[in-house]
Amino acid sequence: MTPERVRIGLLGCGNVGSAFVDLVRTRSDAIAARTGLRLEIGRVAVRSLAKERPVEVPDGVLTLDAPGVVVDPDVDLVVELIGGVEPARELVLAALKAGKPVVTGNKELLAVAGAELFAAAEEAGVDLLFEAAVGGGIPFIRPLRESLAGERIDRIMGIVNGTTNYILTRMTEEGVSYADALAEAQKLGYAERDPTADVEGHDAAAKAAIIASIAFGVRVVAGDVHDEGISGITTADIAYARKMGYVIKLLAIAEQVEGPAGEAGEVAVRVHPAMVPADHPLASVRDSFNAIFVEGAAVGDLMFYGRGAGGSPTASAVLGDVIDAALNRTRGSHATVGTLGKARIRPIDEVESAYYINMDVFDRPGVLAAVAGVFGAHEVSIRSMEQEGLGAEARLVFITHVAREAAVQATLRDLHQLDAVDRITSVLRVIGG
Amino acid sequence: MTPERVRIGLLGCGNVGSAFVDLVRTRSDAIAARTGLRLEIGRVAVRSLAKERPVEVPDGVLTLDAPGVVVDPDVDLVVELIGGVEPARELVLAALKAGKPVVTGNKELLAVAGAELFAAAEEAGVDLLFEAAVGGGIPFIRPLRESLAGERIDRIMGIVNGTTNYILTRMTEEGVSYADALAEAQKLGYAERDPTADVEGHDAAAKAAIIASIAFGVRVVAGDVHDEGISGITTADIAYARKMGYVIKLLAIAEQVEGPAGEAGEVAVRVHPAMVPADHPLASVRDSFNAIFVEGAAVGDLMFYGRGAGGSPTASAVLGDVIDAALNRTRGSHATVGTLGKARIRPIDEVESAYYINMDVFDRPGVLAAVAGVFGAHEVSIRSMEQEGLGAEARLVFITHVAREAAVQATLRDLHQLDAVDRITSVLRVIGG
Repeated sequence: MTPERVRIGLLGCGNVGSAFVDLVRTRSDAIAARTGLRLEIGRVAVRSLAKERPVEVPDGVLTLDAPGVVVDPDVDLVVELIGGVEPARELVLAALKAGKPVVTGNKELLAVAGAELFAAAEEAGVDLLFEAAVGGGIPFIRPLRESLAGERIDRIMGIVNGTTNYILTRMTEEGVSYADALAEAQKLGYAERDPTADVEGHDAAAKAAIIASIAFGVRVVAGDVHDEGISGITTADIAYARKMGYVIKLLAIAEQVEGPAGEAGEVAVRVHPAMVPADHPLASVRDSFNAIFVEGAAVGDLMFYGRGAGGSPTASAVLGDVIDAALNRTRGSHATVGTLGKARIRPIDEVESAYYINMDVFDRPGVLAAVAGVFGAHEVSIRSMEQEGLGAEARLVFITHVAREAAVQATLRDLHQLDAVDRITSVLRVIGG
Repeated sequence: MTPERVRIGLLGCGNVGSAFVDLVRTRSDAIAARTGLRLEIGRVAVRSLAKERPVEVPDGVLTLDAPGVVVDPDVDLVVELIGGVEPARELVLAALKAGKPVVTGNKELLAVAGAELFAAAEEAGVDLLFEAAVGGGIPFIRPLRESLAGERIDRIMGIVNGTTNYILTRMTEEGVSYADALAEAQKLGYAERDPTADVEGHDAAAKAAIIASIAFGVRVVAGDVHDEGISGITTADIAYARKMGYVIKLLAIAEQVEGPAGEAGEVAVRVHPAMVPADHPLASVRDSFNAIFVEGAAVGDLMFYGRGAGGSPTASAVLGDVIDAALNRTRGSHATVGTLGKARIRPIDEVESAYYINMDVFDRPGVLAAVAGVFGAHEVSIRSMEQEGLGAEARLVFITHVAREAAVQATLRDLHQLDAVDRITSVLRVIGG
């Protein structure tokens, strides 16, 4: 059997793009033998022809004309790896309208314009695949869409940002400060010079929006996701967590309450640091690794673990999608995300969680009663309390039962007003337990 | 849009089958809304009509006539959950020949007759899906076949037997003996009255054969898999492992050396207990959970974690396959395993591993030199050694560098011959590190 040629139009040839070109070359023969597809890099659109690249691209293949690539009749399939919303959005739409399957690794694009793009793909009857957009090389979107298509998924918790997981791992295992761990991550190339998008949770929020959209079949955009980062986490928090049998992780959490069949329910999507029980599978995800933990009604707990970034792992996810899209094209079929429904996005005020609250109080009679009274007034129930003397001051460490965010915030406001409370040093959500 | 009816012919209504019937009922509306498919349990073939079942099946649906179900024109798709090789093999073949997609959770069947059945499915142009056969509810076969279709997979290590993982977890965390942990597992229903298939590694070996077949695209049957169980593991082994920073797990390991494109290479498939570094992701897989750890050339390390058994998780995997097969049927396409190539199965003698070897010696001058000399004569290089005094005896604990099985076995034979060696108490393979 002569393998069928599949000519790929690649948009962007940076870190992931170069790794993808290299991977297609290395694996071309094996893929042809296994699938009957002969993958070829037909055209590569870049912003500068002169730039040095880790991979060699022949002269006739490189071009500055991205809009030309996506409509080129010699391009069978488009891979979009330029990132950002524009011009990626327009290029992807043009490719879909030209009847070409698209594979993208662009989380910003999907978190902002996913519903529009999925609709365009459906309209054109071609694939729009995006395994690489969340969790890098981890094959997780496909199982979520296909293997779990019949499952009622109640909650997904992901460690989806490698930079922050690296920083927290160093703080936990080596006791270094946040600032030192961040500097180290920057030196190793895990963190950007301006680390805001990673450390403040914005990168994870975009991924959370995509996860929620796919898992629950509803329209969630990045702006719907409440995010908090890790820049306020101290070594003291980490030490307290360890003492109580927890580790601190930055989690992207998506929960749903299903509506009646065919009707959208309610979803809550957020990113924040959380104390995770030390024996929870997410607690053992170290360094820059990512993992997505899924709680299904029938299947129980699942976890998908792997490299969440890096040229070669991400290129592997792109390649898997390319093969899938090319096989579908040959068969005249395509995968479908379907129309994303409209669910109510639960405001963060209504979200429920257990909390760890750590405060310094002046050590005088009646202080504990006053503090406990504030919790009680807002119906925030205390699960455990520890007190440590500090001379004239004492430190109180509370773990609450599950309570509404609004009630906890009101509790904190009132605690601030108490004369006996010097300062509230830490507030962290607590998972499980 | 009116949902398209898909009438399922179910073979077997035990633990998983009953959970599947229940799950289809519970999720039918949601699946119809999401996929356009209306799943119905059309017929259920059982061995006894009178038996009590945890789920109610209407009178007209239950039947004793399994061969009739697989060719019934009112059955669109067959789910085989009877287990064992015959009559499952004949029924599945008959269903495929009648042009019906088949979903099976039958590991024995696939580990013995997989190549024949995949060829029959290909011939008939219909799906034969089997996510539930390995790793219960963990969606792992689909990502392996599809997401990683282009990846060069070097090694897969799986914890694929929940019974033995539960036993080893109890021994590790509670310090109980093998016998007590086994008794406990039996009481909880995790282990059979005759636990041989689980504890001696036979169950894991069948799953290893399937994993190797799918990951490497070659024909591997259960008989090709070398297996060793955990019945010889002692609390002393576990304590030594912990002291050295390891935990003991029963692993199914499949490795390949790829041949030139299109030509089969060489594979090594085996099941045995192994010492796994405590910070390895597999080390944190506790209780009866399963996990499959994949080492890919481009993607790096991946792990898929979840419930490896149980009615409801396994039924979830079956349901995912049923939806996939039904959608493919609607589209007139089907997934394909392709023809399984013939690879050389590397004999266990040629397989390489690091080893932990623990022996009691008579504490006299020159004993260490004599023992080290035996290792050296077989070119088994020692990575670390610890000696503990025991009065007239001493205990020597060796960790070797990676060595061939044959060389290690020859070393052990010669050590037995040494007068200074009282007995060799433990020999375990060591992963990573």
